[in-house]
Amino acid sequence: MEQKALDEIFMKEALIEAAKAEEIGEVPIGAVIVKGGKVIARAYNYREATQRATTHAELTAIERACDVVGSWRLEECTLYVTLEPCPMCAGAVVQSRIARVVYGAADPKAGCCGTLMNLVQEERFNHRAELSSGIMKEEAAGILTAFFRKLRKEKKRLKQEAEHDATESNISGNRADDGKEA
Amino acid sequence: MEQKALDEIFMKEALIEAAKAEEIGEVPIGAVIVKGGKVIARAYNYREATQRATTHAELTAIERACDVVGSWRLEECTLYVTLEPCPMCAGAVVQSRIARVVYGAADPKAGCCGTLMNLVQEERFNHRAELSSGIMKEEAAGILTAFFRKLRKEKKRLKQEAEHDATESNISGNRADDGKEA
Repeated sequence: MEQKALDEIFMKEALIEAAKAEEIGEVPIGAVIVKGGKVIARAYNYREATQRATTHAELTAIERACDVVGSWRLEECTLYVTLEPCPMCAGAVVQSRIARVVYGAADPKAGCCGTLMNLVQEERFNHRAELSSGIMKEEAAGILTAFFRKLRKEKKRLKQEAEHDATESNISGNRADDGKEA
Repeated sequence: MEQKALDEIFMKEALIEAAKAEEIGEVPIGAVIVKGGKVIARAYNYREATQRATTHAELTAIERACDVVGSWRLEECTLYVTLEPCPMCAGAVVQSRIARVVYGAADPKAGCCGTLMNLVQEERFNHRAELSSGIMKEEAAGILTAFFRKLRKEKKRLKQEAEHDATESNISGNRADDGKEA
């Protein structure tokens, strides 16, 4: 099978993880780590649930892969992630010596695998990874766009409800004042 | 108390953590996180023991501080670490919105808080931290130098022992051959 078709198969697995994050109200980002043609670790972003800044999909997947392999060196592994890694996760790729990184959508705000900078291919570090980007990017970006659209809609609805409640309470407040004055 | 004196007090705490790493044969790097003048989290590097690429002193300290604060936002916290953070840990500072980073020795190989680059003050990220460096750098660098010197010495001793064993085994091997020919 050609590389692109294989990459799509594993990116679909990362998208399944992203969907799990969405189900529990987390920003939908998913990752899997592949070794010898098999998924050895999977994870999704669950920062809100854990309230830990480090529980990004990639970092958790890397930790799980280390546990499976029994080593902090993931030299024969490929990381598939739906969104371009941030500086922390790109740094974790360097630290764990992952051989290859494949991501879906680029991240214009924090992407450190080619967008803002490229930490996984920095000549001065002691490790560099192969890099492929844009695999199933429409799907990866689409799930994020839909999530944030829903979030904005929900916030708007809550704001309107709060304003409505405030008006109601003002009306009854005025009535109460009227009562007192009477 | 002036800032430098305070910084030295907390850097000594980070050095205590580094010493704990050394005791168990880990590269001696230690970190503490301070909030409201108190140490709320402490950690040391224990990558060899865990075989997880992510168990650097800073990353573990950040996770523990998140657990203590109950939030992934560490906006009122200062990270003290004996060695300049790597890209992963500098990225974790950005992700957790730590207000200030204080480190001891600079890291010419992977330092990402001013040496190779400065990720904690990168204008394009959504968070920047205050930065102080060189606090008790002699002590922080000294413990590392001593550790690696001891490691090299130990490796040399083991190599010499192995060579000695090989010579011994060759001698007895020859004797055995002699025996066969006799």
